[in-house]
Amino acid sequence: MTAWLKHKIDAPEDFFYQQALYKQSQLTKPQGSLGVLEDIATRLAAMQKTESPSIERVWVSIFAADHGIAEEGVSAFPQIVTTEMVKNFVNEGAAVNVLSRFVCAQFEVVDVGLLKAVELDGIVVERVGHGTANFAKQAAMTETQLNAALLVGKRAVKRAIEQNTQLFIAGEMGIANTSSATAIAMALTGLTAEQLTGAGTGLAAHAILHKSQVIQKALNLHQQELKTPLKILQYLGGFEIAALVGAYIYAAQKGLPILIDGFISSVAALLAVNINSQIQSWLFYAHQSQEKGHRLVLEHLQARALLDLNMRLGEGSGAVIAVPLLQMACKLHNEMATFEQAKITTH
Amino acid sequence: MTAWLKHKIDAPEDFFYQQALYKQSQLTKPQGSLGVLEDIATRLAAMQKTESPSIERVWVSIFAADHGIAEEGVSAFPQIVTTEMVKNFVNEGAAVNVLSRFVCAQFEVVDVGLLKAVELDGIVVERVGHGTANFAKQAAMTETQLNAALLVGKRAVKRAIEQNTQLFIAGEMGIANTSSATAIAMALTGLTAEQLTGAGTGLAAHAILHKSQVIQKALNLHQQELKTPLKILQYLGGFEIAALVGAYIYAAQKGLPILIDGFISSVAALLAVNINSQIQSWLFYAHQSQEKGHRLVLEHLQARALLDLNMRLGEGSGAVIAVPLLQMACKLHNEMATFEQAKITTH
Repeated sequence: MTAWLKHKIDAPEDFFYQQALYKQSQLTKPQGSLGVLEDIATRLAAMQKTESPSIERVWVSIFAADHGIAEEGVSAFPQIVTTEMVKNFVNEGAAVNVLSRFVCAQFEVVDVGLLKAVELDGIVVERVGHGTANFAKQAAMTETQLNAALLVGKRAVKRAIEQNTQLFIAGEMGIANTSSATAIAMALTGLTAEQLTGAGTGLAAHAILHKSQVIQKALNLHQQELKTPLKILQYLGGFEIAALVGAYIYAAQKGLPILIDGFISSVAALLAVNINSQIQSWLFYAHQSQEKGHRLVLEHLQARALLDLNMRLGEGSGAVIAVPLLQMACKLHNEMATFEQAKITTH
Repeated sequence: MTAWLKHKIDAPEDFFYQQALYKQSQLTKPQGSLGVLEDIATRLAAMQKTESPSIERVWVSIFAADHGIAEEGVSAFPQIVTTEMVKNFVNEGAAVNVLSRFVCAQFEVVDVGLLKAVELDGIVVERVGHGTANFAKQAAMTETQLNAALLVGKRAVKRAIEQNTQLFIAGEMGIANTSSATAIAMALTGLTAEQLTGAGTGLAAHAILHKSQVIQKALNLHQQELKTPLKILQYLGGFEIAALVGAYIYAAQKGLPILIDGFISSVAALLAVNINSQIQSWLFYAHQSQEKGHRLVLEHLQARALLDLNMRLGEGSGAVIAVPLLQMACKLHNEMATFEQAKITTH
């Protein structure tokens, strides 16, 4: 059922990368002076197999699901807020909606397993359960649910590709899902609960300590089972995190560039890298979240984020904020004059 | 002649700032989770005296001038490149042109004192000299030239205001102007040539050492004269740097938000703050340049830049790159649903 996750991911085309590097050296600017924007443009040229990379059509899937661990009191918001925010997404009132409009991204919300189904126009219903089980007491999901949730992500990418998307972004919504992501990060990296546990949506210090203890105890409980990335995801994960993993891997398999959001998304990326390491070259990291563990997770991914704006909202918002940077990097690559065209002395 | 520089700069309106802070607390997101974007939106609300800040009309003036210090061999590019790049700006082939098109900014190039006048359609001719004198040997400019160059900046802002501009950006072009900016920063901050001198457009290590020594000797030569910010500007500056200073101060006097680019622009901002300290609250800092001295200059300004993309191009490019962040901050502030509108549980 999960064999598809290991299917080959091709590397971006080196021929187009080298061609793009040469082009950058000819543009009317000191060598390297566009910094990270040069990296973006040359990498996108290689991914899109083109002389003229572009990011005109952007896709945003928000995966939403509930978490049994919420009953341990690990979030500043009550669990009902997952569903309420899903309604907000559908009504286009959330931050990620405003930002998606700004960059003209196609936007969808996917119910991967809210506690209760909601009747809403426009929501994509792909429920694999009524929220996860409380992973402080048992495995968060069954193997069947895990496989189903991974496929939910794959199908989102299929919809994106049908619309000729050039950049795939996934966001997530799920009250208590920083607890799940923190537990996964601990299992994958060996870092401690203390090092990784942050405020989530806004916990005070004593509540962060409680959250950290809940997560550590859960890790101890499942320790014998956490032998593979997929087992870690099954025992500690959320349906929306599994959907992120499935989406990222399938997008890379189809040669679609991926822009990673904040903490939860980066933990999903870390899972994806542990499952199929070739995915790395298809990932851009949008922003450094203020959530405590994010910096450590990015270090493990040997990644440097494009933005550091003290954001900690999730729902894909930090990724969409970075879209204009990718677009400008492409425009500069394609539209700047060369030294020869502009007749500029270079010696 | 320079009394206008000290004319009062009003603070942004606290009433609208407080109102905007309250609005942010009502939007459907954890408190503070939009990080720096919340600061941007609330500050802009106070500057624009409005409930609904917006950055739709952006103005970019590029001030270009030549530098006598270039004859000391302090730049990786020959002096003729200043003029060649001015032609590139007019022909819309430079990085800042591509970026200005992307954000739909109004764009102009101002000749504040190229070595030789050039006949070009569309260039704004405001020449105050044939390049500055070599400040390694004498004052860079006369007092008359200084006053004239400051007014060039003021007139650019007047043109911007006539077009109902909501954000003022200035860029600069002038081969060898990182030497001038470094010398000014040394005189204003007490930092050493070694601490501040960087690669500019791309010097090798031995050439950076030479540049640093040239600047240090020039500082020693003029030490007795460098008593005020305006004297520092006159003895060590460039015409385009003086135009930046005049523009920034006048923009703040007229209540127009200002977005600062990289090293040269930040040194101009530091001069402006030293001349009229009330300007501070009107400044946004777009990006952390890779040019060595920039971080230290920003520290002196107690400023944190929005972006850090290893850029070091100048010409306003780093500022224009940050424009979408300001625009998105405004859109989020104006368009997100409140908790009440979205019926979201907050306790």
